Amino acid sequence: MAGIEPVVEYIRQNQDRYIAELKEYLSIPSISTLPDHKPDVERAAQWLAAQLKQMGFERVEVIPTEGHPMVVGEWLKAKEGSPTVLVYGHYDVQPVDPLSAWESPPFSPAVKGDEIFARGAADMKGGGEAVLKALEAWTRCAKALPVNVKILFEGEEEIGSPHFDSFVDKNKERLVSSFCLNCDGGLDGPDKPAIGRGLRGIIAFELLVRSSSTDLHSGGFGGTVPNSAVVLSELIAGLHDVDGKVTLAGFYDDVRNVTPEERAEIASHAFPEAEVIKLAGVKQLFGEKGFSPDERVGIRPTLEVNGISAGFTGEGFKTVIPAAASAKLSMRTVPYQNADSLEASLRDYLAARSPPYVDWELKRISRAPYALIETGTPLLEAASRALEDSYGKRPYTALSGGSVPVVAIMKERLGLDSVLLGCALPDCNAHAPNEKLHIPTFMKGIETFARFFLYVNALA
Amino acid sequence: MAGIEPVVEYIRQNQDRYIAELKEYLSIPSISTLPDHKPDVERAAQWLAAQLKQMGFERVEVIPTEGHPMVVGEWLKAKEGSPTVLVYGHYDVQPVDPLSAWESPPFSPAVKGDEIFARGAADMKGGGEAVLKALEAWTRCAKALPVNVKILFEGEEEIGSPHFDSFVDKNKERLVSSFCLNCDGGLDGPDKPAIGRGLRGIIAFELLVRSSSTDLHSGGFGGTVPNSAVVLSELIAGLHDVDGKVTLAGFYDDVRNVTPEERAEIASHAFPEAEVIKLAGVKQLFGEKGFSPDERVGIRPTLEVNGISAGFTGEGFKTVIPAAASAKLSMRTVPYQNADSLEASLRDYLAARSPPYVDWELKRISRAPYALIETGTPLLEAASRALEDSYGKRPYTALSGGSVPVVAIMKERLGLDSVLLGCALPDCNAHAPNEKLHIPTFMKGIETFARFFLYVNALA
Repeated sequence: MAGIEPVVEYIRQNQDRYIAELKEYLSIPSISTLPDHKPDVERAAQWLAAQLKQMGFERVEVIPTEGHPMVVGEWLKAKEGSPTVLVYGHYDVQPVDPLSAWESPPFSPAVKGDEIFARGAADMKGGGEAVLKALEAWTRCAKALPVNVKILFEGEEEIGSPHFDSFVDKNKERLVSSFCLNCDGGLDGPDKPAIGRGLRGIIAFELLVRSSSTDLHSGGFGGTVPNSAVVLSELIAGLHDVDGKVTLAGFYDDVRNVTPEERAEIASHAFPEAEVIKLAGVKQLFGEKGFSPDERVGIRPTLEVNGISAGFTGEGFKTVIPAAASAKLSMRTVPYQNADSLEASLRDYLAARSPPYVDWELKRISRAPYALIETGTPLLEAASRALEDSYGKRPYTALSGGSVPVVAIMKERLGLDSVLLGCALPDCNAHAPNEKLHIPTFMKGIETFARFFLYVNALA
Repeated sequence: MAGIEPVVEYIRQNQDRYIAELKEYLSIPSISTLPDHKPDVERAAQWLAAQLKQMGFERVEVIPTEGHPMVVGEWLKAKEGSPTVLVYGHYDVQPVDPLSAWESPPFSPAVKGDEIFARGAADMKGGGEAVLKALEAWTRCAKALPVNVKILFEGEEEIGSPHFDSFVDKNKERLVSSFCLNCDGGLDGPDKPAIGRGLRGIIAFELLVRSSSTDLHSGGFGGTVPNSAVVLSELIAGLHDVDGKVTLAGFYDDVRNVTPEERAEIASHAFPEAEVIKLAGVKQLFGEKGFSPDERVGIRPTLEVNGISAGFTGEGFKTVIPAAASAKLSMRTVPYQNADSLEASLRDYLAARSPPYVDWELKRISRAPYALIETGTPLLEAASRALEDSYGKRPYTALSGGSVPVVAIMKERLGLDSVLLGCALPDCNAHAPNEKLHIPTFMKGIETFARFFLYVNALA
């Protein structure tokens, strides 16, 4: 097995070709949500499959699903006992509207200075190409990869991965691996390396409160019958105390004990409060007392109201007492909270607080577990060292507030921890006009992935 | 001037003709909300105008508005010093769907037993014809009316009287009167005479709470930013205490002191609680402690939430923190509450209770004053005696919970108190299929109106 130096050297010499091939990939308008672009989505899948074949991958296939196809392939010739990395990515992109806001056509990739502008450049054709070019560099320089690799790229991430779980279930044997490298990640800045090592889980509910069989006239009944919108409001109002804490019994009981070191690391990378306020477009921040904004998002659970609806909500006015009111509620959970206990606590709260004159129903709409790679584990250490070597500094191992369904599915269905690495920068305009990829970050991304594949075997 | 006896005798002898003419009127499908029926609405107006002319009314006109026309006419030859009664009614009707639920065609009036079935029979072509036939009986028997009368029938009551106030403003001189007889009223049963003597006022608002400039992702921001839906819920939850009382400062301060006699009269006519529960389709009633359901609706003010809306409310789920949340709120006011003070109190509450991290805005959408005819006044006494003579018992003088815009406009623009009399019964299926008019009640209605016109002059 060759060392990393010739691989890095090879990568640096091939920048022009990489850009040229990335532009080819970016020219395919693989917008998954628009039926007119179905042939383009298929074309992007075939383009990826061709790349994999050229690199010597085996069992390369474009596998149809009920939606857009999956691209799979594998290279399993690493030395005996090597782990297997499942590389996850997606080749579909967001729509481009408003088209008029683009400074160059979204599917005619344009290099301006250090950046390449195109839809999908950052999210995530750049990251996808970076991981493939890292693998290609190994095959060209060492005629082998330092680790077994399986590839799984989907074409429906931008529409919520609707067929991902069923595909994984049907192809478990083919996908058996040791870890997952999710290359849909990013950095905190061109010189701020970062790894996603944790994601919050989510439990989403719909709460329905019914106070009468039909809407009632507020003239004839106002003052004498229960009002579902008032009861719903009272139930919602009781869910938080004045300190922003969730009042559900036991809500924080199982929350992972975060060490002073972890809190210090979060603090050292925290966004200044003024910047968060600006980014969010709020007058002030508000959240659980005793925790910084970054902690509230990264290590603390939350309970949000995502929507409420009752009665008449159009223009003008209607003298109606709403028969029913509903709310979409969701909890973002952190390690090691128990989703069943949390749901039970919410049900207990509703049973205790709902007045006898209404009926209520709580429906669970979806659930995804939190994800956490503990510090010191081989997967996280390999990713950290790879970034440290590329950037000359230890990366920030971030705990994110979001929930990535694919990461949850990898854990639930295949038992795989995921590390999120990638080339996207915070100002990349993902999902917006003038999406862009920072070319030096893209090149460092290829190097980083190349190092990761080496280190993940050495450390495992 | 002739006495009432020959007039009543004349009325009783003419039942067949009255029914025949009412059927003619009911055959005109004057559905105001459907543009296809515009010619029918016009035809109903012309039909009414022709009746007025036949009865010797003067200045009879069908006056166009931006919507459907007004029918006006007057007879002002009563003896010097007589008051003038402005008779209000409407000649438009509700749509008929679902047509399949009708047992006979809605515009082919069918007499079955004591009832006549047709759209508009109860609401309110029956009441309109009854008042005209009472006037006709006077002109036939006495060659004169016992009082001056002006007629104003509109064709847009069923669509909210959108051009009524501007018409009244433009025709104030022509409409100058002493009282208003609103013949869109009804009874509590075939042998339960009733008069509407009071209506609650209404003040309708839209409350908007904004927590961020755009909707935020609940993964990246959940736990660290304010949530407009939560804040709105908290504001709504604080508006009532556990006893169902409105918490706004001074909300009940100006409420009219209701005498024990009035409360006893309300109690004597109260619907049994079980019946109200069934009618409303609720599990239990809920309202201000210390007052009966009928009192809560008739003599107590209320504050209702008529609609709430925020964030994502469709099928499924969206991980959004709503930037803005809105509620439609309305107060039903009673004599002698001051609408400006109530609005100020709501604004004070919002200012005091809204957290500093949100913006809020309260827009007033509409306002109509309460209406009350004090007991013992000539208008109420004339109506009471007329009903007492027709039914052999004193009528119930009801305080209703609703707000009739036309009654408010009569008071605000013309300074006229309105008494509500009519022929509709509680089971008349107004606005529903198989609307019907009870013929004996219609006939007693004609007698009652005939008596009213006599007594209102004698008592005024």
